[in-house]
Parts: sequence; C-alpha cells; structure tokens
Amino acid sequence: MDALFHALTVAPLGQPETELVLNVADEVPVKLTFNGIFPHGVMMMTSDHLEDFAYGYCLTEEIIRSAEQIRAVVVTQEDDGLAMDVTLTGECLSALLKRRPRAQTGHTSCGLCGSDDVPAVETVGACTLPLTQTITVDAVCKALNDLDRWQELNAATRMAHAAAWADADGHIQMIREDVGRHNALDKLIGARLRNGGAMQSGVCLLTSRYSFEMALKTLRAGIAIVAAVSAPTYRAYRLAERMNQTLIAIARRDRQILFCGGERITQ
Amino acid sequence: MDALFHALTVAPLGQPETELVLNVADEVPVKLTFNGIFPHGVMMMTSDHLEDFAYGYCLTEEIIRSAEQIRAVVVTQEDDGLAMDVTLTGECLSALLKRRPRAQTGHTSCGLCGSDDVPAVETVGACTLPLTQTITVDAVCKALNDLDRWQELNAATRMAHAAAWADADGHIQMIREDVGRHNALDKLIGARLRNGGAMQSGVCLLTSRYSFEMALKTLRAGIAIVAAVSAPTYRAYRLAERMNQTLIAIARRDRQILFCGGERITQ
Repeated sequence: MDALFHALTVAPLGQPETELVLNVADEVPVKLTFNGIFPHGVMMMTSDHLEDFAYGYCLTEEIIRSAEQIRAVVVTQEDDGLAMDVTLTGECLSALLKRRPRAQTGHTSCGLCGSDDVPAVETVGACTLPLTQTITVDAVCKALNDLDRWQELNAATRMAHAAAWADADGHIQMIREDVGRHNALDKLIGARLRNGGAMQSGVCLLTSRYSFEMALKTLRAGIAIVAAVSAPTYRAYRLAERMNQTLIAIARRDRQILFCGGERITQ
Repeated sequence: MDALFHALTVAPLGQPETELVLNVADEVPVKLTFNGIFPHGVMMMTSDHLEDFAYGYCLTEEIIRSAEQIRAVVVTQEDDGLAMDVTLTGECLSALLKRRPRAQTGHTSCGLCGSDDVPAVETVGACTLPLTQTITVDAVCKALNDLDRWQELNAATRMAHAAAWADADGHIQMIREDVGRHNALDKLIGARLRNGGAMQSGVCLLTSRYSFEMALKTLRAGIAIVAAVSAPTYRAYRLAERMNQTLIAIARRDRQILFCGGERITQ
C-alpha cells in the first residue's frame, strides 16, 4: 500500500533560507473494473480502506443493494496507481451493464456517476426517511467536539476530509478520511455495510460541504441524521427536506444550524 | 438564469425560537452536448459564466486547442437544470468521438474526464513551461490580500470557490466563482481564452486545494505561476515540479509556502 502522505522540505515565499517540513496528502488513481473485464472509470483517492470504498460506492451508486451482492474485491498495484476489481453477482452485473455507456469518465465518486441524468429533486427516492429515530442536541455537540481527535490523516496534513459515524449518545464509533469528500463518505458507508451496521441509529458527521451529490449518497444509504461542518447547497437542502432527512450544517463547536428535520431533535 | 444563491430562514440547533436568515449557494445540473446530438455528461455547477466554462472545459479537457475551434455555445433551460450545447469544428468533433466511451458519467469537470486513463505524472505534457516569466513576492502578496474583496458569491454565501487572475504587479484582473473548484478554474481559463488573454504574464490564484486534477488543468492552459490558498496533494506537487510550474500554496496573507519553481520568484 502506498503511503497516505509524504513529508516535503519547503520554504516560505521570499525566505528561501527558512526550511520547513510539511506533510502533504497523496492521492492515487484507482482504476475500477467489475467482474474482471468491465471498466468503470478511474477515481483519485487516498489509498486506504479501499474495500470499504468499493462497498460504499456500489451502494450509493445503486449498483448493489446489500453487501451480499459483492462476491469479492481485489486491489492490485498497477503502474502509477491501483486497480480495483469488484466481483458482483450476475444479477447486479447485468443491471449495471444495461446502463447506457457515457462519453466521459468520472473520477470523484460524486454520487451521480452511472446515472443517465442527474435526478430532479422531485424524483429522487421512492419513500422518505422514517421519523422513528431521535438524537439529542448534546449528543450532536459531543460528537462534533470529538471529531477533530479522530482525524488522523488530517492531523498530519490539514488537508483531508472525513466522514464519521457517532451513536445516539454522540460517541464516535468509526471514521474514514480521504482527500475527496465523496470518497470519505463512501468509505464510511461501505464500512458500516460490511460490518452489518445499520444506518438507523446515530448521526453521520461530515467535515465538508453538503452538496447535492453528498445528499444523494447519504439518502441512498438510508442515513436519517447528518451533521456537516460546512454549508449545504440549496439543492442539497431541498432534497434533504423533501426526504425528511435531519440536516444540521455549518456545524461548529459553539453553534450548529438546523436546516430541516427538526422532528428528530430532542433536548 | 437561475439565482446563484437563496436565502433560507433557519435556527441554531436547540434554539428554535432564534431565527436566522442565511444565504446558501445553489448548484444546477448542466447537461453538456456537442454539436447538437452527442451527449458528454452532466456537471453540477454555479449557473453563471457558462460560456466561459465551455471554453475553459474544452481547453483543459483537450477537446480544443484554441478558441476558434468552438463555433457556438448555446445554453437553454431544461426541466430542473440547464442544457449546454457546444458546436465544435469538424476536426475537433471527430477527434472527440474517437475517444472510447466510458461506463460512467463525470460531473465535476475534474480535469481527467474524457481521458482513457489517468496520465502518470511522468507522461503528462510534451514540454515543460518556459522560465521567461517572473513575479515578485510583493505582487503575489498583494494579489492574495485583495482576493477576498473580489469574491462576491463567497461574500454572500461563504461557500464558493474562486479562481482569479492577477497581473505581474499583483493587480487582480478577473475572477470566476463556483461551488466547484474545478468549475471556477475552467471558467477563468475560458474567460481568458475567449478574451484573447494569454496565460504567460501573471499569477493564477485559487482559493482551494491544488489536486492533481487542478494541476492538469492549469498546465494544459499553460499557466506558469499558481498561488493556491490551500495545500497541494503530493501528486499535484510532483507534476508541477516536473513541468517547471511555480507553485505557491498554503498561501495566506501573512505567509505563503513555495513548493517548486522558485526560479520565477524575484524580490
């Protein structure tokens, strides 16, 4: 496995005599194929937890609906990057191959890849999220307070995104990091899927903005409560609201904004 | 044209009685076709300066090499988004159609779209950038100091990326903003291409990280000096160094880090 970051000796601009050592995160091209022969594209990624990524990506891209629909994930070194082959069940592979090929390669696991078109907000999803789950303000704040300490790659480089899962008491249970925010989220979702962990109880923490593509991914994973450190786009907000998702964003230690889904928040 | 952002009435978490009005940036799906009939993918974008985007995207994706190779750009409203048709010269269209279609749609104008594979660092570009151009430390600092004031969408929303061009004296001449950093850069490059502006003199300012995809775009546009507010990835740094690009990053008002290409920096 490649190193996730590298130390560079650099200098402040205009002060060439002042040497500094900085860690910068690496990214590697991961060439994804299905069942050994069907190419699907190349993603630029942080090269850890790639099996988690495979499961999460396939779920949020609607290639699979359960972990059992992946038979194997094999990652190999290849030239200047990695190759990842995912063996799907025959049923899933058939459905994937029926999707129309496109003229363009996607590289960021953006949540819309593989779809013929970007779905309109009004047409996403067959049913909205249930309101059975709740979370307290204190639990959300505790999880956000603890988030920094869990971000190992970011502590080393100050340039990695994270997606984390905290339980209903605000205890962080799992984190995944990546130079790409979509990748970090797919890794988290895949890790939970592989571990049989349901998405019903707890909150998904994101260090990034909450774009439409990110909202599609969390919704397709059935995540009811999201707390994003940065802001949502208007389109992501509209989608979250329509799907009954609880969206907390611009979520800092001292103040978090509730955008929609306040029914799940208790004091 | 759609509004670039919308005001939402929200409340801090746990304080439902405290209403706040926040502006959030919108993003719209832009469905790109060539010459009326060839679909190329959908990008999520801030819906301004779309003609600039078309020129910049086609240049940095190596679909065109000069502005004259685009005959027309037509943007129309379509359902829940926009459709953008770009009429290429026959020569460029032929070359584009010879590229192998892929299984996946790209949505972020990421600089690798349309390529068969991610190019290895060692194989990008036929020739490195010339060292004819220089810039002073003061000019870089002046441009970075002024950048905030030029970011109108970001001033309203605090969530937009920008790519700007400053001349050799550090005077900002042009800025483009977008929810996506790749899009902002393509808009800037396209605007300069359309205006006949060469990339030889001055510095390209970026509010974002400098990933491999961003580096490919600036290099394909022939940009010799880049100052990015956030950090480069290791792969982007390696590429910039190999191509003789001057890369200043983690560029704040009080300190900027020179990563490579110091030959172009003068006091």
